[in-house]
Amino acid sequence: MSGEEKLSDAGLWKGYFKTGITDLPPGKILIRGYPLEELMGNISFAEVLYLILKGELPSKEEGKLMEAVLFGIVDHGFLSSASPPARYVVSGNPDPIHGIVSGVLSIGHFTGSPRASGEMLKEAYQIMKSEKLSIGETAKRIITKFREKKKRIPGLGHPLYTIDPRAARLRELAERYGKLGEYVKLMEAIHDEFVKTRGKEIPINTDGMMAAVMAELGFDPLEMEALGVVSYLPGIIGHTIEELKTGQIVRIIPPVITQYTGPAERHLPKERIKED
Amino acid sequence: MSGEEKLSDAGLWKGYFKTGITDLPPGKILIRGYPLEELMGNISFAEVLYLILKGELPSKEEGKLMEAVLFGIVDHGFLSSASPPARYVVSGNPDPIHGIVSGVLSIGHFTGSPRASGEMLKEAYQIMKSEKLSIGETAKRIITKFREKKKRIPGLGHPLYTIDPRAARLRELAERYGKLGEYVKLMEAIHDEFVKTRGKEIPINTDGMMAAVMAELGFDPLEMEALGVVSYLPGIIGHTIEELKTGQIVRIIPPVITQYTGPAERHLPKERIKED
Amino acid sequence: MSGEEKLSDAGLWKGYFKTGITDLPPGKILIRGYPLEELMGNISFAEVLYLILKGELPSKEEGKLMEAVLFGIVDHGFLSSASPPARYVVSGNPDPIHGIVSGVLSIGHFTGSPRASGEMLKEAYQIMKSEKLSIGETAKRIITKFREKKKRIPGLGHPLYTIDPRAARLRELAERYGKLGEYVKLMEAIHDEFVKTRGKEIPINTDGMMAAVMAELGFDPLEMEALGVVSYLPGIIGHTIEELKTGQIVRIIPPVITQYTGPAERHLPKERIKED
Amino acid sequence: MSGEEKLSDAGLWKGYFKTGITDLPPGKILIRGYPLEELMGNISFAEVLYLILKGELPSKEEGKLMEAVLFGIVDHGFLSSASPPARYVVSGNPDPIHGIVSGVLSIGHFTGSPRASGEMLKEAYQIMKSEKLSIGETAKRIITKFREKKKRIPGLGHPLYTIDPRAARLRELAERYGKLGEYVKLMEAIHDEFVKTRGKEIPINTDGMMAAVMAELGFDPLEMEALGVVSYLPGIIGHTIEELKTGQIVRIIPPVITQYTGPAERHLPKERIKED
Repeated sequence: MSGEEKLSDAGLWKGYFKTGITDLPPGKILIRGYPLEELMGNISFAEVLYLILKGELPSKEEGKLMEAVLFGIVDHGFLSSASPPARYVVSGNPDPIHGIVSGVLSIGHFTGSPRASGEMLKEAYQIMKSEKLSIGETAKRIITKFREKKKRIPGLGHPLYTIDPRAARLRELAERYGKLGEYVKLMEAIHDEFVKTRGKEIPINTDGMMAAVMAELGFDPLEMEALGVVSYLPGIIGHTIEELKTGQIVRIIPPVITQYTGPAERHLPKERIKED
Repeated sequence: MSGEEKLSDAGLWKGYFKTGITDLPPGKILIRGYPLEELMGNISFAEVLYLILKGELPSKEEGKLMEAVLFGIVDHGFLSSASPPARYVVSGNPDPIHGIVSGVLSIGHFTGSPRASGEMLKEAYQIMKSEKLSIGETAKRIITKFREKKKRIPGLGHPLYTIDPRAARLRELAERYGKLGEYVKLMEAIHDEFVKTRGKEIPINTDGMMAAVMAELGFDPLEMEALGVVSYLPGIIGHTIEELKTGQIVRIIPPVITQYTGPAERHLPKERIKED
Repeated sequence: MSGEEKLSDAGLWKGYFKTGITDLPPGKILIRGYPLEELMGNISFAEVLYLILKGELPSKEEGKLMEAVLFGIVDHGFLSSASPPARYVVSGNPDPIHGIVSGVLSIGHFTGSPRASGEMLKEAYQIMKSEKLSIGETAKRIITKFREKKKRIPGLGHPLYTIDPRAARLRELAERYGKLGEYVKLMEAIHDEFVKTRGKEIPINTDGMMAAVMAELGFDPLEMEALGVVSYLPGIIGHTIEELKTGQIVRIIPPVITQYTGPAERHLPKERIKED
Repeated sequence: MSGEEKLSDAGLWKGYFKTGITDLPPGKILIRGYPLEELMGNISFAEVLYLILKGELPSKEEGKLMEAVLFGIVDHGFLSSASPPARYVVSGNPDPIHGIVSGVLSIGHFTGSPRASGEMLKEAYQIMKSEKLSIGETAKRIITKFREKKKRIPGLGHPLYTIDPRAARLRELAERYGKLGEYVKLMEAIHDEFVKTRGKEIPINTDGMMAAVMAELGFDPLEMEALGVVSYLPGIIGHTIEELKTGQIVRIIPPVITQYTGPAERHLPKERIKED
């Protein structure tokens, strides 16, 4: 019996897609069990994100810290690789969704995503617990491990800031809301160890502190990347709309900042020219 | 002088990109003038979206209504065209951003976007003011105009709901926060006129009420579409992450719901077969 | 009975998704009926695009013209709004698909898409046939109509070229392959009429000629936009890969070409500062 | 001096963006040095992709094999995770580019991309050369290595095919065009070793053979992923257009294949209900 034949067995497909997020009984929209219209006006946008991802409402303090962590990015003007694609894209195709999506696509390994930091912290935490190390010992282990693999430590350093004001403020709020736990301390110990061994005075950046605080709130690295998108969205939307309202059509990269490095003019050999 | 030559004049490109959103003086991140770390912990995510788009902070009431309007969509389970692309996409490429972006791309003319309703309300408002009509007269004019053009009235009707619970709740909150103004009344008058003339008992849907409330808050249709994206994001993120954690790889559309309608097997004519 | 209940009736969903493109009987992949492995090596990539969209193989001449029309864009270096988003995006998220997708998203109303020209030509053709006008009369009608609506004529003009070399060559090949029909002539008549009435010496651009030639090949405006994507893809892929291999991480828009136009530093009023 | 101040030094930004792909001297479009209008009509779309990525024209045989390798995917009907997002997306937002982009985003680690196979072959080739192993010894080493890391061997197996007809045909054409070299042999040796040691009769799939043939043509894994996008594009475009022309608006996932697994209806605790 072929694969295709087996695939047409109806029983195989019952419950092919499962979800625990939203139920839609007659006339109702239940988000993790709660009627949507009851959530509207009573909890914050940050809280509904938490509810959807974790299945339960946050406490008051967790809700406030969740809101704070969404302020980890917001916008970084033109010194960002997220606003340029949004603006170039809508200059060619004047559709807000095209612009928003393009900005979001720039988020990832090098910018805007706490995921890499979150993966490092997750690994550090597992080592710490399984080998019963102190936070300081764990930090040393991580620094050594990354150095051996010649990998950049995520969550540290910024081209512009000696102290990242977003990270500093987020730490302050984590403390206020009772979430200055082992993940934040691990991030700080890794930072201390890095500065001590490398002798470079660089800060914990906002991605690093966001990852630590999100870990305190119980999010895993995949969820951190998704929340990074939310955090960057105000700026991405802002630039998209500003370009649509006040920008230019078909923007280019100006010749004053470009250079052509390829071959000079040349032509196809005669035998490649088709006469028919 | 060629176009290209003119383009290399440096003076031409000063201020090629302008923004009023974010300034980055040494060590600072100023969002519409406010230090980002000052906004973090003091205003809500809904309020920073408002600030970025409109340039000024909302009042307390506007801030609360802004938050409410972001609950206009949230999620609609599998009875949605936003969660399926998110899930299919990450089943092939297990990357959260791919999934989120695909879900967002489904938002638009037919679903998830208050833009079409917003454009209708904007047109209605302009007619009302320029021709000094009453709200009821304006609604009649709009219904007639759409009927003549054989265009669907946006913002009305839903395949599942006789009353859309999201729209009803949002209207209640608009009233609570003092924003039950001409746009909401226009939407309701257009709805009344539609029901009266067509004899169909359909509700104002959430897109329609979101558009009316966003118009009360001073947003234009392009901004409404961008805010529709934010409103749908919790669900899109939720389905993306749920699929990544508990789903399957390389999902297909099951044969029990598909049908092939094309030609039977056939073969290339001999003269099309290449031997070299 | 509720909407949701009705939705769970299995009979409703038989053949919910229909396709005439590909059939997958046991062990086979039939594209419009032809075994895929038979197409591979015997027809060109341009021909399989034609086959999939139109359901039948092109003639030899149509196949060659189809290939030519895919060369209508290819790349436009940095004087393009498609290569910048691709490069910015991969500078943040070093993933080829992110870059390609961002470049593609810039294609649309203002650049890279023959759709707008195709819609104009479709309208012109319908007017010509239904009102039994000559090509020249139709062109006048179109020019008048667009002027009255204050709409830009698509397919004409280019910031750099007085003759667009791509359009000129594509016309030459359309003639060689016997497809210099009414659509190309309409495009040329519209161009002539525009130049005569406006007194501006601007060329038919590549989007305009692509639309005319694609119309000769039987494509509609939606298909033209999709084929515009294919045509731009070599450049978008090239820039994406070049940036990944030789570019920089987290590219920004350099301050030498930007300007901040927003408010000076300011602070939240005291009553907005939260102490808890 | 601050980072921002340093950034405003104009000298810093000369040649910030470099490209060797396209030069645009007055009135000309030179692709890797060749006038675009000279390429149009004389080389194939597959050849211009090769030219842009590698900087030089392919030989006749390389050009033909390049064309063949773009037939490695083409379409896989509804038994694919690329066509569903394209169709769902345009059912909500009826814009061809939204659909195309969503389909492309599904390509990646698990489907449609030869990248993972290409990375394995690259690693295998380096081991073989640096340790002077035979092809068979290298294959054993790779199988052992992947087993130790508990990683799936890419490029092998298919849910439907015991022989993948696309892979078989592509190998035949690689032989015809003189490119049956070490990469194809490595892929086959890895396959043989896998079948021998695991005792599972699974085929080399099309991704695996595409990677091997692309490696013979000199492409690296990042380029392979980009070319995978091109190869899948005919199907993605076909489904997008077919849905736009003959599909439905706002498609859902039918309840006959879904299941809700979350909590029953519940309500916010009283203290969470806001009265103001």
